Amino acid sequence: MNAEILAVGTELLLGDIVNTNAQYLSVELAKLGISVFYQSVVGDNAERLTNAYEIAFSRADMVITTGGLGPTEDDLTKEIGSKFFHKKLVLHQPSLDFIENVFSRQNLKMTENNKKQAMFPEGSTILENPKGTAPGCMIEENGKILIMLPGPPSEVVPMYENVVLPILRQKSDGIYLSTTVKICGIGESAVEDKVKDLIDGQTNPTIAPYAKTNEVTLRVTASAKTEKEAKELIIPTIDELYKRLPDFIYGKDDDTLEGVVCKMLMEKNLTIAVAESCTGGMFTSRLVDFPGISNVLKESCITYSNEAKINRLGVTEETLRDFGAVSRETAIEMAEGIAKTGNANIGVSITGVAGPDGGTDEKPVGLVFAAISINGTTECREYHNVGDRQKIRTRVVSNVLYWLWRALKNV
Amino acid sequence: MNAEILAVGTELLLGDIVNTNAQYLSVELAKLGISVFYQSVVGDNAERLTNAYEIAFSRADMVITTGGLGPTEDDLTKEIGSKFFHKKLVLHQPSLDFIENVFSRQNLKMTENNKKQAMFPEGSTILENPKGTAPGCMIEENGKILIMLPGPPSEVVPMYENVVLPILRQKSDGIYLSTTVKICGIGESAVEDKVKDLIDGQTNPTIAPYAKTNEVTLRVTASAKTEKEAKELIIPTIDELYKRLPDFIYGKDDDTLEGVVCKMLMEKNLTIAVAESCTGGMFTSRLVDFPGISNVLKESCITYSNEAKINRLGVTEETLRDFGAVSRETAIEMAEGIAKTGNANIGVSITGVAGPDGGTDEKPVGLVFAAISINGTTECREYHNVGDRQKIRTRVVSNVLYWLWRALKNV
Repeated sequence: MNAEILAVGTELLLGDIVNTNAQYLSVELAKLGISVFYQSVVGDNAERLTNAYEIAFSRADMVITTGGLGPTEDDLTKEIGSKFFHKKLVLHQPSLDFIENVFSRQNLKMTENNKKQAMFPEGSTILENPKGTAPGCMIEENGKILIMLPGPPSEVVPMYENVVLPILRQKSDGIYLSTTVKICGIGESAVEDKVKDLIDGQTNPTIAPYAKTNEVTLRVTASAKTEKEAKELIIPTIDELYKRLPDFIYGKDDDTLEGVVCKMLMEKNLTIAVAESCTGGMFTSRLVDFPGISNVLKESCITYSNEAKINRLGVTEETLRDFGAVSRETAIEMAEGIAKTGNANIGVSITGVAGPDGGTDEKPVGLVFAAISINGTTECREYHNVGDRQKIRTRVVSNVLYWLWRALKNV
Repeated sequence: MNAEILAVGTELLLGDIVNTNAQYLSVELAKLGISVFYQSVVGDNAERLTNAYEIAFSRADMVITTGGLGPTEDDLTKEIGSKFFHKKLVLHQPSLDFIENVFSRQNLKMTENNKKQAMFPEGSTILENPKGTAPGCMIEENGKILIMLPGPPSEVVPMYENVVLPILRQKSDGIYLSTTVKICGIGESAVEDKVKDLIDGQTNPTIAPYAKTNEVTLRVTASAKTEKEAKELIIPTIDELYKRLPDFIYGKDDDTLEGVVCKMLMEKNLTIAVAESCTGGMFTSRLVDFPGISNVLKESCITYSNEAKINRLGVTEETLRDFGAVSRETAIEMAEGIAKTGNANIGVSITGVAGPDGGTDEKPVGLVFAAISINGTTECREYHNVGDRQKIRTRVVSNVLYWLWRALKNV
């Protein structure tokens, strides 16, 4: 089976957004052994969308669309898709009930045009979308399959995983199984350097490196007749990767660095408190992304002003005067101060110059000091990051989280 | 003139990389008034690439390709492009000299296959690529234009700016100018409801609604002979939008809600401090996205535990016992507590159930209380959001920031 991914939306043609859905779906379809020969993007225009459907179905068995399922007149994907298959749109009452419920739970009144989102091609399979108000649907006829998904990636990903994937699995022969190894604290080219012979030397499983924001992943994919067989092919390669990168692989598949850190804290019965300056809550917010965090996170103080550093954390006026807010000495007093005043086993602090202003020759934009105090023993590190304000802050949060993970391994 | 962007590369079809070139080029072409009706992606395959050229030129005046100019046998863009225009490839000596020089400067020997990068369709215009070893080229014939650029965005961007843009400027007549109006506190369908007659009734300028995360934008685009003329066309429409949506339009173009709030705080000489629970620093981190924030943000306490709410903010044990941590009463004490202990004019608090666990019938996942205390006067609001943990937290941060913006307008 081969597929074409057709994104519908003028915002893509104007460059307002990047077509990350095409990437995500391509990766997922490859895992099932479904070849994607073309990706296309077309605007919210009836004539051109009709044309795009015709071309796509002339060269693909399956077309997966994203976008254009919303409530406005611009949203045409279902309308034109139905016409292509000579079907009329009919109301799907459970979907309308669901949409009305989403509005009422937020104490909002559903406007009339939202009903459009509950209209589907007659005889199509409805694909539920728990994260949004636009369910998707699937038409299957004469050996052709049309799957219509909404536009927002936050809706596409869970819909694909929970609803579309089980349907496609039944249709594909043989299986592709992947395990993704997650790596931090080292760059993509350095990772590749350490495993190049494995990447070049083997074809089943394959190993594909991929750089994400402040992380690298290695995807190990095996093809086999059964899941058991595929798993057996994958395991030795994963073991070898762990041997090659022991200090950098923090987890697999759905693991997140903050989740792994949080679980270690729970296992070791340690509580944590955080004092942030330039990162402004980003470090804590990342910890809070993990649902179990309330078991170990006591609190966090974003001591943006010197006044707050003194009052909340007990940083001394002398230290601030003599060394400045961005200094090794202040970082250490912040970490020890938050551990003490927050009554936590571990105190983490971050203070730096995120820019774009405020840098000096001595303390340039991108200079960040972080300290970790564990049961009274404190260490401080100095980071030099480049990029804009957002990039510097994001990077240092990952750096410190990586350091905390390494430090916890030795507690 | 209309254009199609055709990316060539199997790595895109496998989802190894995202097609950011398509976004970049779309934005740039829109600025010149060149409509992009389709974006396409095809793999490194001669037959399918031929097919893609045929389709693209059947519907576009100009095709811009990215990728497939490299030295390997897989790189076919120029080869197939030449065939399409019935031209043979000839050696361009200055390009070969340039490529040889790139290698020798790195003390590397140029391999034979690199010569391929200096072969171009006869009669084509060479487009220099100072950042890489693959120059691009342009064929212009019978009213059709083919521009071939390399794949890496770090090469595409400077090549477009320095070489392609000056060529295209000469070819386009008139200019397109856009202003984007930024809206929060109201959904996309409700916005459209209020301006539908404007969207439907006018063609120059056009109005295009677009939903972003917790925001809506309306892009107003005018085409005219001069920039001045285009501006004059846009202004009355923008004024009308402000009249229709006075409580929801917070800014234009590069404005951000946090930036607008921060500027208002500075103008009104007000300081702010924040107490967060379920949002875990996300609200403060969003404020800190704006570089000028250090002028007004005193501090923030992420009081995740009850202990921290008592110690840092002075929330009473009785309130927590009688009403719980997620309650109107606690939210109010948190906001007043952070304003007082943080020595700020304004205190903002957020406490809620972000899920996925911890919800009860009485206090379900998604229930959030927020309070804003301005110069001693405190108000509390109750929010009911749906979605996963991340979505609930992101949404409430936007809700409260919107409320703060509204509240500041009346101070």
